[in-house]
Amino acid sequence: MSALVVLKKREDKRISQGHLWAFSNEIERVEQPGDPGCVAELRSSEGKPLGIGFYHPHSLIAFRLLDKDPRAVIGREWFERKISDALARRGRHYPGSRSFRLCFGESDGLPGLVIDRYDSILVLQVLSAGMERCLGFIEQALGALLKPQGILLKNDVESRRLEGLPLEVRILSGEVPETVEFEEEGIRLAVCPQKGQKTGYFFDQRDNRKFLRPYFKGRRVLDLYCYVGSFALNAVLAGAKEVLGADSSAKAVELAKHNAKLNGFQDKVAIQKEDAAGMLEAFSRGELPFNPDMVVLDPPNLAPTKKSLAPALRLYSRLNTMALSGLKTGGLLATASCSHHLPRGMFAEMLREAAMRAGKTAQLVALRSQARDHPVLLAMPETQYLNFALLEVIE
Amino acid sequence: MSALVVLKKREDKRISQGHLWAFSNEIERVEQPGDPGCVAELRSSEGKPLGIGFYHPHSLIAFRLLDKDPRAVIGREWFERKISDALARRGRHYPGSRSFRLCFGESDGLPGLVIDRYDSILVLQVLSAGMERCLGFIEQALGALLKPQGILLKNDVESRRLEGLPLEVRILSGEVPETVEFEEEGIRLAVCPQKGQKTGYFFDQRDNRKFLRPYFKGRRVLDLYCYVGSFALNAVLAGAKEVLGADSSAKAVELAKHNAKLNGFQDKVAIQKEDAAGMLEAFSRGELPFNPDMVVLDPPNLAPTKKSLAPALRLYSRLNTMALSGLKTGGLLATASCSHHLPRGMFAEMLREAAMRAGKTAQLVALRSQARDHPVLLAMPETQYLNFALLEVIE
Repeated sequence: MSALVVLKKREDKRISQGHLWAFSNEIERVEQPGDPGCVAELRSSEGKPLGIGFYHPHSLIAFRLLDKDPRAVIGREWFERKISDALARRGRHYPGSRSFRLCFGESDGLPGLVIDRYDSILVLQVLSAGMERCLGFIEQALGALLKPQGILLKNDVESRRLEGLPLEVRILSGEVPETVEFEEEGIRLAVCPQKGQKTGYFFDQRDNRKFLRPYFKGRRVLDLYCYVGSFALNAVLAGAKEVLGADSSAKAVELAKHNAKLNGFQDKVAIQKEDAAGMLEAFSRGELPFNPDMVVLDPPNLAPTKKSLAPALRLYSRLNTMALSGLKTGGLLATASCSHHLPRGMFAEMLREAAMRAGKTAQLVALRSQARDHPVLLAMPETQYLNFALLEVIE
Repeated sequence: MSALVVLKKREDKRISQGHLWAFSNEIERVEQPGDPGCVAELRSSEGKPLGIGFYHPHSLIAFRLLDKDPRAVIGREWFERKISDALARRGRHYPGSRSFRLCFGESDGLPGLVIDRYDSILVLQVLSAGMERCLGFIEQALGALLKPQGILLKNDVESRRLEGLPLEVRILSGEVPETVEFEEEGIRLAVCPQKGQKTGYFFDQRDNRKFLRPYFKGRRVLDLYCYVGSFALNAVLAGAKEVLGADSSAKAVELAKHNAKLNGFQDKVAIQKEDAAGMLEAFSRGELPFNPDMVVLDPPNLAPTKKSLAPALRLYSRLNTMALSGLKTGGLLATASCSHHLPRGMFAEMLREAAMRAGKTAQLVALRSQARDHPVLLAMPETQYLNFALLEVIE
């Protein structure tokens, strides 16, 4: 007999609208509760069956829906079907590609599970106690579907603490080399999943990198927060005149240089260990040794929490103001944010103010979002987190 | 001596932020006012020069900024520079293309002027009295830059009344045939600027049509509000299995059929004179003679005024609910709205509710906007008006 979670009156509304979470304060009672992350049935206060999912007695997100059918069996077969569906969707978005975010948690109906595929290496982030308990099924499903060379658990994510899970990085199965090579849209890349940020790479800018290609042509490009160099390498591939990538991390700079070589671009791109703010300050004062007419500004998540949004906005604004200040008429700024606490409208407003402070008139050529392997679940707006704008200074 | 418009206290804020308009209630006084649409200088209440623009004593939009430099001479040379800049930007967005929106009013620094280029034919919409007075300069500038075969004034736009301008369609210069042919992304199209909607065609979906191409492949596509058939023809070109376009206008159906023939696609696409709502009703009940797994829903502006937003939202919701109801797992809905009264967040929320009503779980694969020849002026959010979503039904 599995656990039964009964919601308070009217608290079934969000779930009925397609959202996958119930919060602890929305729960009336729990019958036969199991351990954290146990599979439980969910019902409305009137007894209406809402589905089956993971229950966690100590987590704010107390329930995560897996299946609307309360009789669904959450086992290897179920995971194989879900992951296979997600894989098929990636195949339609990126035909022939072997590297992408294979599973984007809630959006793919797998709450708390992130899978990045680097060719034959899989890197997982398991963010809920329920998923952690299903690791065996997940491993089997992935084995059957993809026969991976190795699976890495990159479970050093702070939010695991909320679920009572340890922070760790370990190999789940097979072999995972320190450096993993893969291809994205014709560019070879090497990353270090075990030691790099997140799973080692950011697939979420893939579509935006490709979108920028025609704009890189003939430009002098400054790529800030360049990490392993993917925007910079796209710029070279697309025919930029000059490309300078900068990152404050020595490890990132090393990888970016390595990646330049991997593609035979070592003479066409310079990578420097530099702080973005410092570079932009010099740029805005016209003191940079080269004169970029296109800036890529892709900072890490500056607003990881709601509380950090206000200071983050000030920093985004400062960075973008400096970038726009340095650009002349015809100059391009590709700029991004990757926090779901910073909604699209607020991002656009921040850019508006930055342009004003910089004394520039700018066209918003495009306002885009995350790549298609990070799909948004329509019923969970918080799965949309990436803002990406291409601005052209017209005066 | 030209007119001088002085703003009330603190009413220079919007203009200082890069917006181009001052409203009549923000104006303190006008010295030496000329006729409606005269060129005037703008100053803050403290006497700070803000620039030069068109003044209209009877229009709600009393002042439209043309140049921040109050000494700028608004003549042929000025227009030639502005239009030449706009042309260069189009060239960067669509290299080699000869048909696009050449000028998107405020966004291109030419308030109230729309120019669509169909190869060697130009179609203008002049929406302010000031621009109307400059038609001579505009004609000369266009002649020098493009040597057009003909220029049509498609001035049957209601908003011209607000500026005291007559509604009319007339040839400004050269020859303008009844049917104009041009190419968009490898597809030949014929449109009728003199009698069609707006300037005869909707360039604003160009990028979205191209974006959909890989998704059309192998699909059975229902293209609703198909107008002259451009989504449907893209579907055929991209390898759709079956394509049905529908529009309630006999003239549109005739043109869409003609365009199918122009591309040699007449055996690969059916065009019917049908009402979209009726088609969708049949589809949602599974009563359509063919079984689409992809629907394109591109209605005209259902919310042309703020007042019409509430009923428009109900209609958008109804149409999208029916479309989603008819689609099975794996089905795609490409859906749009084109009113700046319907912001992006509200559009997404409407789709969320539609999916819920249809009992479908959907991924928002992409949320996009208007094509790059309709750029948004960063400082005028109202220049963003098109919402476009690709949804995939995943359950």
